[in-house]
Formats: sequence, structure tokens, C-alpha cells
Amino acid sequence: MERVRVGILGATGLVGQRLVDRLASHPWFELVALAASDRSAGAAYAEVCRWSLSSPLPAAWASVPVRPSRPADLGDCDLVFSALDPAAAREIEPAFLAAGFVVVSNSSAHRMEPDVPLVIPEVNASHLALVEKQRRRTGGGFVVTNPNCSVTGLALALAPLHATFGVKRVVVATLQALSGAGLDGPRGLEVVDNVIPFIPREEEKIETEVAKILGRVRGGTVERADVTVSAHCHRVPTLEGHLEAVSVETERPVTAGEAADALRGFQGEVADLGLPSSPAAPVLVREQPDRPQPRLDRDAGGGMSAVVGRIRACPVLTLRFEVLSHNAVRGAAGGALLNAELLLRRGLVSRRAAS
Amino acid sequence: MERVRVGILGATGLVGQRLVDRLASHPWFELVALAASDRSAGAAYAEVCRWSLSSPLPAAWASVPVRPSRPADLGDCDLVFSALDPAAAREIEPAFLAAGFVVVSNSSAHRMEPDVPLVIPEVNASHLALVEKQRRRTGGGFVVTNPNCSVTGLALALAPLHATFGVKRVVVATLQALSGAGLDGPRGLEVVDNVIPFIPREEEKIETEVAKILGRVRGGTVERADVTVSAHCHRVPTLEGHLEAVSVETERPVTAGEAADALRGFQGEVADLGLPSSPAAPVLVREQPDRPQPRLDRDAGGGMSAVVGRIRACPVLTLRFEVLSHNAVRGAAGGALLNAELLLRRGLVSRRAAS
Amino acid sequence: MERVRVGILGATGLVGQRLVDRLASHPWFELVALAASDRSAGAAYAEVCRWSLSSPLPAAWASVPVRPSRPADLGDCDLVFSALDPAAAREIEPAFLAAGFVVVSNSSAHRMEPDVPLVIPEVNASHLALVEKQRRRTGGGFVVTNPNCSVTGLALALAPLHATFGVKRVVVATLQALSGAGLDGPRGLEVVDNVIPFIPREEEKIETEVAKILGRVRGGTVERADVTVSAHCHRVPTLEGHLEAVSVETERPVTAGEAADALRGFQGEVADLGLPSSPAAPVLVREQPDRPQPRLDRDAGGGMSAVVGRIRACPVLTLRFEVLSHNAVRGAAGGALLNAELLLRRGLVSRRAAS
Amino acid sequence: MERVRVGILGATGLVGQRLVDRLASHPWFELVALAASDRSAGAAYAEVCRWSLSSPLPAAWASVPVRPSRPADLGDCDLVFSALDPAAAREIEPAFLAAGFVVVSNSSAHRMEPDVPLVIPEVNASHLALVEKQRRRTGGGFVVTNPNCSVTGLALALAPLHATFGVKRVVVATLQALSGAGLDGPRGLEVVDNVIPFIPREEEKIETEVAKILGRVRGGTVERADVTVSAHCHRVPTLEGHLEAVSVETERPVTAGEAADALRGFQGEVADLGLPSSPAAPVLVREQPDRPQPRLDRDAGGGMSAVVGRIRACPVLTLRFEVLSHNAVRGAAGGALLNAELLLRRGLVSRRAAS
Repeated sequence: MERVRVGILGATGLVGQRLVDRLASHPWFELVALAASDRSAGAAYAEVCRWSLSSPLPAAWASVPVRPSRPADLGDCDLVFSALDPAAAREIEPAFLAAGFVVVSNSSAHRMEPDVPLVIPEVNASHLALVEKQRRRTGGGFVVTNPNCSVTGLALALAPLHATFGVKRVVVATLQALSGAGLDGPRGLEVVDNVIPFIPREEEKIETEVAKILGRVRGGTVERADVTVSAHCHRVPTLEGHLEAVSVETERPVTAGEAADALRGFQGEVADLGLPSSPAAPVLVREQPDRPQPRLDRDAGGGMSAVVGRIRACPVLTLRFEVLSHNAVRGAAGGALLNAELLLRRGLVSRRAAS
Repeated sequence: MERVRVGILGATGLVGQRLVDRLASHPWFELVALAASDRSAGAAYAEVCRWSLSSPLPAAWASVPVRPSRPADLGDCDLVFSALDPAAAREIEPAFLAAGFVVVSNSSAHRMEPDVPLVIPEVNASHLALVEKQRRRTGGGFVVTNPNCSVTGLALALAPLHATFGVKRVVVATLQALSGAGLDGPRGLEVVDNVIPFIPREEEKIETEVAKILGRVRGGTVERADVTVSAHCHRVPTLEGHLEAVSVETERPVTAGEAADALRGFQGEVADLGLPSSPAAPVLVREQPDRPQPRLDRDAGGGMSAVVGRIRACPVLTLRFEVLSHNAVRGAAGGALLNAELLLRRGLVSRRAAS
Repeated sequence: MERVRVGILGATGLVGQRLVDRLASHPWFELVALAASDRSAGAAYAEVCRWSLSSPLPAAWASVPVRPSRPADLGDCDLVFSALDPAAAREIEPAFLAAGFVVVSNSSAHRMEPDVPLVIPEVNASHLALVEKQRRRTGGGFVVTNPNCSVTGLALALAPLHATFGVKRVVVATLQALSGAGLDGPRGLEVVDNVIPFIPREEEKIETEVAKILGRVRGGTVERADVTVSAHCHRVPTLEGHLEAVSVETERPVTAGEAADALRGFQGEVADLGLPSSPAAPVLVREQPDRPQPRLDRDAGGGMSAVVGRIRACPVLTLRFEVLSHNAVRGAAGGALLNAELLLRRGLVSRRAAS
Repeated sequence: MERVRVGILGATGLVGQRLVDRLASHPWFELVALAASDRSAGAAYAEVCRWSLSSPLPAAWASVPVRPSRPADLGDCDLVFSALDPAAAREIEPAFLAAGFVVVSNSSAHRMEPDVPLVIPEVNASHLALVEKQRRRTGGGFVVTNPNCSVTGLALALAPLHATFGVKRVVVATLQALSGAGLDGPRGLEVVDNVIPFIPREEEKIETEVAKILGRVRGGTVERADVTVSAHCHRVPTLEGHLEAVSVETERPVTAGEAADALRGFQGEVADLGLPSSPAAPVLVREQPDRPQPRLDRDAGGGMSAVVGRIRACPVLTLRFEVLSHNAVRGAAGGALLNAELLLRRGLVSRRAAS
């Protein structure tokens, strides 16, 4: 199979770097273009990118000039990943849609638009049905988004519980890693021996995105699930891995054992598709009393599995547990990549004949 | 006024050190005895104590021999503070009660016993009414306890809300500092770039102690408040200051503004007593969107004020907010000291004529 | 005594905040003006300052408008402190000198100029003799500087060794705290589980400033000491307190015991002046094998004492030891304040009759 | 080739865990036995081991009973790795030698004995000549050791400089990671916002081991190199990767560029042997001004390359630079494994016919 050619918008940021790292050796995608702001365009990638991963910057890309973020400059791409910040995405992504591109976006800019799928493949691959409608609006191009990095793990844990027991209300407190704030996140002086109990616009994202993800497509739009979420967000001095303490109220009674069984047995909608980034188990359940822990569990399933532990009855709602998900892998670059793989498998993107 | 002579059981631990530090210059108490385990007894305090405070070990105590933890060895004390771990406290505190001592304990060993007051002076000084009954049991001695370090700040914040709006249910996620685990807490290797989502027996303490503290003394016992608590406890890499994300359901409706007013106006039962360790305000309310933060707010009111912020409506319960309290000051040594000051003011302890 | 009126240039930065904090209750100085960049001028101090100290922003200054950094706007000041960054100081400090001001500067901009005293009072108060010459150049105003935050503790430890044994060569490796980089220092993502082995222009400062400080004023200029320094600078994830590992070659032989005696006995040139910020001992020697430690020792002497430990023979040079100094107190705001106190005591600044 | 059967003494500690992890899929070695103290013997490995790596405990070993650390209990092993602490190694390793075992030890217990090779394969594989003499002493068994975790990276960087320019004197300050202290290293409370300027017996190891490693075998013993080392050791709050600031005096003049060339060109004595754990380059040189950094560079070469940066002239000695080496990989488990591979290649260990 000839590989699909892809480009990255926002390639110099932390999520962009993760995409470069993962696409450097992808079986289905061939990375052909790195794009960034006009300020960086023209310069070698290694010079304008503060590379922050412990794996080295792929040698093949170090001296490649960064392109401007304009459709005309990525004409050789069959698909573009967007790792843009929201303000840039609001401006740039529509230009690519108008030019007929398939955009797989990690940005929050268009996640909540009615005809934009907000997708975690195992949970709601069926939401790709929105693509057809969206295409009619744009004239051909379309964007598929993945959730906020603090939502993905939560939604992966809630999905099987919702399917089996009916999730009604959720109180969640997050302990989020520094990398979730990108390269320009909080200063060392702000986070050593400290916790910041506030992340701008994060609680709103958690409270709205979950209901869309757990919803169903009906009549060309997503009918949101009847799930109410209350989020308390904290930035803690960890590097990677968002940990979340969750209390859930369900429609039907559920014991800790039943919940663990539902989580362990969860395969989701794409189990048989052989997507390269798909982990063996979307949700892993740890039995030890003090897990999951960010440093020990964030890389489970190559960073693509949500790890759940401490499942127990909640005296106020019904059930409570901890869930951990790698914010930069499953919650960002890996999540976007999995979405792109799903699009390819579904025939929604393909290598164009001539470019 | 002649100062009351006090001793410290468990003087070498972290809470014991805090007591030594605070008692070195107390207007009402004169520190006369440091006691520890038989293993340490006889040795100079500086030699058996891994002093861990940034204020220096008071010079006057460095070479003083540590005493054994037996009533006969603290006969010159009018009152003893207990900073013992629970196992030791279960054994040693009763011996002191039997010998007629007044014990002010930070230990969890006897907090939940029916005739033992579990006291935060501003919240439930009235619970000292239990002392009389307890004394009949012991024959003269009695113990007064302060809550777990993760409970004190929470109870201070809940008390005025409970008084005004009726607290029914609480979901709380804690982000607790390392010093709460004492000198033998988690290893550096376990907490750098990590969070531990479990603290043994901590959630149970939060869930039971709150209802006792908010209860009322009736018929010689505490009638617990009808408040259900669900706690999720985490150890985070901060040194001091337990931060807690709280969602509360109240009986009566309450806006964020009304809650803030109730918290700000809270004076509590001991406002006029002039207790030396009493802060100007038991609860402070921060307006900034990203406060309270452990490093910036834990020392408010000399470490004796609970600091509340981010008061807002909760879409699942009624109200939500963050509360921070200095675990080692208000939550341990300072809380015990405030209780001892209250006992003195109430005439429940006094300097004995001859020792 | 009527207090001298002072202003602060660069009042919103981290050193500026420390100055505000310390000047809020100073016996000799009355804080009357906070100045900052034109961008901040006019706004209330609390609004343009990201207050980062655990002690609260002094209430009296919260709503006071910040002034522009121009001489005409600080006409009511008898002395101005400069906490400006080097680029701003190069431009602004000369304007104040030209207008006849006494400037006490923490900035590196003019430290190495031949007629500018670079002063640690205990070490080289005699360098104030340069003021007279400087005044002839400027027409009346003059600036006195304190060393870089990584130099002060080192120079305090070297001074008594130099006086007694003759210091020839020094190899020093620093482990510097985050606050030394100011409010815009490294990101949390860069320093958690990490060390940065480079601080721009820091090694050069250490290598040049030490020889000037240990030099002597001869013929109206400083004859630098014949001391060669090699510095290796590191930023480590501590908040405050620069720790330095020092190997020293001396002219005359010296045992660890003799070195400790020289350090302990050091009083310096200002011991009898009663300067309010002067610590009881400029250098403290710790006997424990694992001290000094930043968290435990940085506040010694109110943050104004350098703390030395692990004094032992060096198999390569002569002697080696560790020295710790509070970068933000002795190494910045406290050091500048001590210099200002010295100027006052020496009659080099006074309250002007009418302002 | 039939794989050589190996066992691990001290399998439950941090280095033991690293060995289990690396041996789970080794092309030349087959792990057959995990041994630990009598306290753990008999229990399943997963139960007595506080597994601390982010890679999971290999499933095949979780329920395998741990064996006692006696030769009779490891009779099926052709070679044993020792990850014992020094006290245990002093007792247990001789018993294995007496029983004819080949022991590859990470312990410090016997490193400095005259007939025990202290080996970094690229630097001094020739020291294996000592084995023959040692065998005459023991009657057949022998032990080969690797250096202390703070020595390996330093020796790798010094070796090519010594070969080309002659190293005479070295001043080194270390910033060592927490994992170097094992599972029972410093508490979180001791290291958050702190540095500990002391590691027991570490400086002595650095000062003696370097001269042995850089020495030559003559007349059946190691003639130590004439290199004097002065070490300042610090424990810093990083998880892995020992960073060291080094000043070197050389016999012959050397520029930074010449030093970089010598380091880059270093291949060492085993370049052509195809050892599985051998990195492509034993020493990597970073050009960026702020490297190496522990988090970004410790995994270079699979954790087996030393990374050098900031090479520049030293105003006191000749040359200075920073070197980083992964303490738990190259400095411990990986270093021991590389030594075992070398023994196999040299024919000093082989699969026994029947066991």
C-alpha cells in the first residue's frame, strides 16, 4: 500500500513534536511537510523548535525548512494534522477545509461545532457519520477532532460504564501534568513545592466534551448524552500523565467488581480494524491499592491505554475510581493519529493520484 | 500568670518538632519535658531527632536528654501533648490518663471514642462538655484531640456553610503534602514527577471525623451531623499545605456570593477568648482565580487560617470550592496548641501547686 | 531620626517584590515610590505585579499607582533602589545619576565599571572610597552595587580565607535556585526531574566579580585580587538558596580546622555599625556531614548569613567546602538593603530638607 | 547458539529490577533464577519486589518464587549477576566464587581488590587479564565488577582525553539522581525544593576507582594511573541520570575543539565485538550550550552512551565540561550486562554441558 502523505500544522509546539516523533516511522503515513507560523517559516525545523522530548529530533527533519501554514504550501499532503493553538486554529483550519483538505485536529477550536466529529475511536467511531454533512457545508474538506487531554482518559473510563449502567452525574478532580500546558506552561518557580488549582477554560471543556462524546448521531447531528459533569482542575508538578479522581452516579446499581469487569472487557467500536496506534486494551485495570500513578502507568499500552484503579463504592454518588491517561500521547498526538488511522480505514482519506 | 508546664510525647517526630518550635516561646506554656520511645530515651534531643524545620532547633533543647514516655517520668508536667503515632498512642495515652494527666493529642488513636472531644475551637469548642464524662471513666485524666491534618481545613470551611445552609453531602479530592506523612513518608523516588493516589486509612478518617466535628453534644455524647462525605486522597510532591477540591450539596440554596460571605464572616465559638494561636480570621477567602496555592497561601494567619478560593456553583451538587490548610500547623501542632490554650482558658488545666 | 525616603526601580520583578516586602517595616527607610516600565506605570501595584512571595503583598501598597522610571517622577526620594534587568539599568540608572540621585543597584549593568563600588559590607566596605571619584564624573549622583546572587555567598566564604591564607585559585560548581532567574525563569517542564547545566553570562560574572570584591582600592580605583576562578553553573529545581561546591588553592597551607576557625571568627568591616540588616554572623559553619542544604539553611541569619559546611582537604587544590547563600535575600534585596544602610551610616545619603 | 543461563543476586532491589527488565529479552542470556535475602526467599517475585520501573514487571517472572542467595540454590546458572548491597556482597559473593561461579557484580564490595577487574569494556577490557590470577586464588570462580554509578560516565569521558592528552588532575562536582540511592534512598520530604550535598562513601569511590580504571595491567596487577581526583557529591531531585561538572588538568595542551574530537572519535577496546548492549558511540558530544540535561539526554544510546557538553577551557586547570550518564543503565545494570557480554565473547563464561 502506498502511504498517505501528511503534513503537520503547528509542528514546532509540544504536540507537533510528538506528531513528528510518531510519524517518523508510521506504516500508513508518510510525513512530507512541517508548517508553523510565518515567524518560523523558512527556517530549519531544528532551529525554530525547542525540541523537548527525550527521544531525539528525527535526523531527517532537522534541517528541513518549515513551511507557512497556508493550503497552497501543503499541496502535496493528502491529510494535515493540526496541532495549532485555538486562536490560530480558528483562522487556519477553515482555510484548509475550504481548500478541500482533510484535517485531523487536536485543537479545541471546532470540537463543539454540530457537524464536527469529536472522536475517540473505541468510544464513538460512529460519529464520523457527521463528515458527510460537514462536507456539504465546506464543499469537500472536513475536520475531525479529538478531545481535550483531560477528557480522553475520563471518556474512555466512562464509556463502558455508561453503556452498561448508565452514567448520570460525574464529579471529577484532575491532577494534570505540566506538558498539558505546552512549551509555554507554568514556570518552575510556580510549580516546585506547589499546585495550581486552576487551568483556564479546562473545566468547561471537560463538562461539555464528555456529553458530546457519549452522545449518539441522530438526524445528522450529535444528540448529547444526559450526563452532567462537575470538574475541579489542578496543575501538579508532574511531566506527563493526567490523573483524575472520579465519582460517578449511575442509573442502575453497580458494584466495584461489576465496574471492573465492564472496564476490563471494553473493546470498543474499532477492535477489529488493526489500527497501528490502537492499544491491546483501551482500558487497563490495576489491582494494587496505590495505582495508577503517573510515572509508573502513563506509558501503559504505549501511552494509548487509560489506566483505572481504586474502583470502589462512593458513599455520595454510586461509584468512584482513579483514571490516568497520557496527556501527550492518547490525549493529543496519539489520539489524533488514531483518528487519522480510522479515517484511512474507513476510506475517508486516501493517497491522491497526482500531487 | 505563671505558665503551665508542658511535656511532649513523640517529641522527635515531625509534629513533635513543630511543637518544640512553637512552645519554645509560648506566653502561656513552659516546655519542660521531651519524651520519646525507649530507644531514644536518655540521649540528647539533637542526637535522636532528625530536625527537619527550616527554623533551627531551639538551642536550649539540643542537649537536653529525652525522657521515656512514662507518666512517672513526666511528673513535673501539668499537661502533655501527644504527637505519637497511632499504635504508640493506643498504648501510652491511656497510661497517662490513668495517671491523671491532661493529654492534648494529635494522634488518631482515640479521636472517635464517644467521650473524647475531637475539637477545632472555632467550630465545636462546646464538645469539651464531654470531658466531664470522660473523667468519670478515667478517674481524673482526660484527652482532647484535634482532627486529621486533611480534615481540619475542610471542617473549617464546611462549618459556616453547615450553620447557614445545611451541608448534606460532600465529595472531596485531596492533594496532600509530603510532611503529612511524617519523617518516614514516601521516598523521593516515589514522588518526583509523580502523584500517589492513595493514603492508607486517610479517606476513612475524613469520612468519619467531619460528621463528629459538625455534630452536637447531647446527653453526654456527640450526635453526629447528618453529613455524608466521599474522599479521594492523593499525595503530591509539595512539602506543606493540604489542598482540597470540594463539591458540597446543601439543604438550602446558596450562591457563590452568599457562601463567600458566610465564610468571610465566620468567627466561631472562641473569637473573644484571646487565644495566642488563634488567627485573626479562621477562614480567609481569596478572590484571584488561581488561589489558594500551597506555597503562597499555607502560611496565611501564621499557618492557622484555612484559605478558600474558587467558590462557584457545582452542576452536580450545589457548590464547589478549593480549600487549603497548613497540615503541620493548623492540621497538627498548631491545632493541638490551640486546643491546649482553649483548655487553659476554660479552666480545664492549670499549673499545679507543687511539682 | 527621620527616616530616609526611598523608591524602587523595577518594583514589579522578583527582587523588587522582596524589596517592597523588606522595606514595608524598615527602621531607617520609608518607602515612598514604586516605579516600573512605562507599560505598567499608572496601574495599581497589585495589578501589574505577579506577587510571588509567601508573605502577603503589604496592604498599604496594593492600590498605589506605579510610577514611570524617570528621575522627575521620583523627586521625593532621597535614594532609589534599582532592581532593573541589565538592559533597562544601562539606560535608566545613568539618568538617575545625572539627576543627582544615590542609586543602590542590584543590577549587573555597572558593577564592573572602575569607579563603581561592588560591595558586600562585611568584605569591602572600604570600596565606598570610589564614590567620591564617581561623583566627580557624574556631577553628584552615584551608584553602589551588590554582586550577582551566585557571587555573594562565595565571596563571603572566600574573604576570611583570603585574608588569612591567601586565595589563589578557585573551582566552583553552583547549584542555583529557580528564583535567581526571576519571574520569567525556566518553565516547570524544563526543570522537573531535570537540571540545566548552563546559565547565560553567569560564569563570567562569578569569574570577574570575585576578584574585584576581594581587591583593594588604590589610587582611586580597585586593584583586583590575584584570584583566578573557574565556574560551572547549574540551575536546579529548588526555589531559593544557591548552593556551591568550592575547591580552593591557598598561598599558605591550611587545615580544615583552621579554615573553619577563620570562617567562624569572621566579623568583617561593619560589625560595630549596628546595621539593621546585618546578621549576627556573616558566615555560619555547620558541623553535620550533610549540610548546608537549601531548604534547611537558606534562612539562617534571616537569609543574610552564608552557611558553610563539609570543610575538608582537597586532593587537587588545597581546601574544599560547600557554601549556601539565600539568592533572593543576601544575594539580591537584602544585600542591596545592607548596602543602603551602610551608605546611611557613612553619611553618604541623608534625608533632604525639603522635597 | 544456546544461551547462557544466568541468575540475579539481589533481584528485588532497583538494580536487580533493571537486570530483570533487560534480561527478559536478551539474545545471549537466559534468565533462570532470581535470588534475594532469606526474608524474601520462597515468595513470588512480584510480592517481595516493589517494582519501580515504568516498563511493567515481565509477566513470566511475577509469580516465580525467589530463591535463597546460596550457591546450591543457583546450581543451574552458568553466571550470576550480583546487585547486592556492599555488606551482603562481602559475605555472599565469596561463597559463589568458592563454589566456582562466574560473578558479574555491580557491588562496591570487591572492586578495589588487586586481582578483581573493575571494567568498562570500551576503556579497559584488557583488565580481564586479572581473571586468571584471581582464579588461582579462588580455585576457579571469579568476579568481574563495574564501577560506581557516578564513576562510569566520568571514566568514559576521561579515557580518550587521558589517552591523547594525559589527564593529571580532576575536580568534579556531581549532581546525582535519586535512583542512585536505590529503593531506600532519601525521602520526598528531604529532596523536594532541596539538594543534599553529601552521599556517604561516594567521593572516596570516585577518587579511587578512576585511577584503577585508567591504569594498566602489569605483572598480574593493575598499576594505577597517576590521576588525582577531587569529588564533591550532591543528591538532586532528579530520577535518573548523573550529571557531573568536570575540570581537568592535562599533561599536554588541549583546546576545546581537540578534546571534542578525541571524545567523538573514541571507540574503545570492544568496538568490533558486536556486544548487544554496546552503544553505537560510547561518548556523544552535544553542541547546544545548555546540554547535556538529565531528562533529555540520559537515554542516549539506550542509556549506554555518556553525553558530554559545554567543553571549554578552564582558567584554573586546563579543560572543563559537563558529562551525563544514566546511573541505572550504564552505571549499573547495563554496565554489568555489557561486562557479562564481554566475558562471553572472550570465552570466559559458557553454557555448561549439563546442569
